[in-house]
Amino acid sequence: MLKATIDADIFRESIDAVAALVTECRLHVETDTLYTRAVDTANVAMVSLALKKEAFESYQATKEELGIDIAKLKNMMGMMSKGDTLRLQFPEGGHKMEMAFGKYHYAITLLDVNTIRKDPNPPTIELPGNVVLSGEALYSAIRAAAMVSDKIALGIDPANQIFYMMAEGDTDTIRLELHKSELSSLSLVEVRSLFSLDYLKDMGKVMGKAENVEVHLGVNHPVKFSFDIAEGKGRIDYLLAPRIEAE
Amino acid sequence: MLKATIDADIFRESIDAVAALVTECRLHVETDTLYTRAVDTANVAMVSLALKKEAFESYQATKEELGIDIAKLKNMMGMMSKGDTLRLQFPEGGHKMEMAFGKYHYAITLLDVNTIRKDPNPPTIELPGNVVLSGEALYSAIRAAAMVSDKIALGIDPANQIFYMMAEGDTDTIRLELHKSELSSLSLVEVRSLFSLDYLKDMGKVMGKAENVEVHLGVNHPVKFSFDIAEGKGRIDYLLAPRIEAE
Amino acid sequence: MLKATIDADIFRESIDAVAALVTECRLHVETDTLYTRAVDTANVAMVSLALKKEAFESYQATKEELGIDIAKLKNMMGMMSKGDTLRLQFPEGGHKMEMAFGKYHYAITLLDVNTIRKDPNPPTIELPGNVVLSGEALYSAIRAAAMVSDKIALGIDPANQIFYMMAEGDTDTIRLELHKSELSSLSLVEVRSLFSLDYLKDMGKVMGKAENVEVHLGVNHPVKFSFDIAEGKGRIDYLLAPRIEAE
Repeated sequence: MLKATIDADIFRESIDAVAALVTECRLHVETDTLYTRAVDTANVAMVSLALKKEAFESYQATKEELGIDIAKLKNMMGMMSKGDTLRLQFPEGGHKMEMAFGKYHYAITLLDVNTIRKDPNPPTIELPGNVVLSGEALYSAIRAAAMVSDKIALGIDPANQIFYMMAEGDTDTIRLELHKSELSSLSLVEVRSLFSLDYLKDMGKVMGKAENVEVHLGVNHPVKFSFDIAEGKGRIDYLLAPRIEAE
Repeated sequence: MLKATIDADIFRESIDAVAALVTECRLHVETDTLYTRAVDTANVAMVSLALKKEAFESYQATKEELGIDIAKLKNMMGMMSKGDTLRLQFPEGGHKMEMAFGKYHYAITLLDVNTIRKDPNPPTIELPGNVVLSGEALYSAIRAAAMVSDKIALGIDPANQIFYMMAEGDTDTIRLELHKSELSSLSLVEVRSLFSLDYLKDMGKVMGKAENVEVHLGVNHPVKFSFDIAEGKGRIDYLLAPRIEAE
Repeated sequence: MLKATIDADIFRESIDAVAALVTECRLHVETDTLYTRAVDTANVAMVSLALKKEAFESYQATKEELGIDIAKLKNMMGMMSKGDTLRLQFPEGGHKMEMAFGKYHYAITLLDVNTIRKDPNPPTIELPGNVVLSGEALYSAIRAAAMVSDKIALGIDPANQIFYMMAEGDTDTIRLELHKSELSSLSLVEVRSLFSLDYLKDMGKVMGKAENVEVHLGVNHPVKFSFDIAEGKGRIDYLLAPRIEAE
């Protein structure tokens, strides 16, 4: 059972974050939190979303697992206005979730959870490199890199106290450097990995709205991006596998 | 003969209303009014537009019937700026209409009226249900319904004093209810009919700009939407045939 | 060798002007100026761009001829923000040009100049008709004409002291007249030539931003458009061959 109300913008942001990677997911309802964890069809990227009870205006729930058509929900969000409050209601043993905002009442048939991929296990990896920068700067760099290549290298140069993003195309290269003094935080460890821009562009669109994004890096390891939503009462993590760097 | 000047925005709004259903029409010029009435190619929807002499800044006319290429006119409207005055001129026995605004002079060849469908006869139907609501609320409901279905039911629930719009798709439903207290006017008669959203979306775009739209409903009968333009000196009516409701 | 800094907007405007006609060009670097001159593939239109040393914030150069991929540069400009300063650097005997702005460093492989058409010789023609009007009015007229035809006639009517633009389509015509009193300057010579709107639309988009455009006309002769950029420290000329007017 779920009976909750939430600010429309917070819900929209949450759905957008998940929609960047998957079109459907298992939404776990707990008594004090609502979360999902999903991998894209190619097993390259993972998204985790958690909204604490406190992120809601009201929240009352018993344990449930709901099959959500993320693409449809994202479409529906387009009807909500800024400042709207969204009411979510799912009865014990039901098949439809009621969503209401303003004068509108939607009844949405849920997906059978058994048709949706099981939750992935988050890999246990050590990522010693740590950078905190604005989501806007991160997204801007991703877009710039996409103009010359389909891959981007992210790394830290501890000697020069620099976080860099670098893309090399067939004929052109682009390099962005941010000095420690321009960053909220930078760990001085030598790390560098290469990533597909295909995924980063979609994630970047979401991260571009975050005030701060924590970037966790290793040497030829996945990258993890973490950022708050709902003023810290919710959290989104993206994990992206590296590409192999041709020397 | 026609020699008239009119505010560009009023003319644009008039053309847009007709363009929502047809690409050409017979424009009737009378000494004190300018009007057209046309049905779409599938005979499902009808539009009537009437502009009184008073809707114009100046108006001088003798009886004429002009074949208008609505699609071309709509395109041309794009060149006019807010606040422009449009001068229309059609000489007795001419073949071209002159349209001038700002420094521009257009000469547009008219269509042969005999190649355009005759004016439809407005059906004589009783529509006892009557609602007045803002065009914005109406258009918003149409767009919301289009997300789950291709049909929408419009009806009045007299017991609860409610005007409702309801769409049922294969898996999802949406219902919008507006209480009498939220409406400019509501007649407490039980009515309900089903309509194709294809047509309503196009009409809705035009009605969305109207301050108030009168909706006339019956039981499995057409719906009629009426609204003012040019501060009441012009009037637009849409009539839309119902779809048969599967039980 | 080239080492220069320039306001991002000035550089963008320069690239856009050239990009309206060609996708690549030979950029001539001189000690006190930077210029290019190129014709489109159909030999119908020519563009000349010259930026004086003073158009740059700093400028240091020895004679070079660089093969520029204009389409790529235009794309890259999209990443620059208003107010950015662009740093250009090309080392003696190098193959790549470095472009940096904000925190970004691009390295762009130049094209082999031998694969690019040689500079055209500007034709020596007399164009006695001379009009100066705002770029906005010129572009607006070009768009209006494109709605009824694919050709436009430009001419001066000395008797009525009028500069006119006229387009005749199969069914419709449009005429725009600007009296001497509405123009910055008008020479009272009878001239008139016909031009393809295909080219004018692309040029018009660039000229639309210029405060004043000088138009030079003859009788069935090319038209030359000239306008300043960088507050007069740069200059752009377009030359367009006439179409033959069917009588």
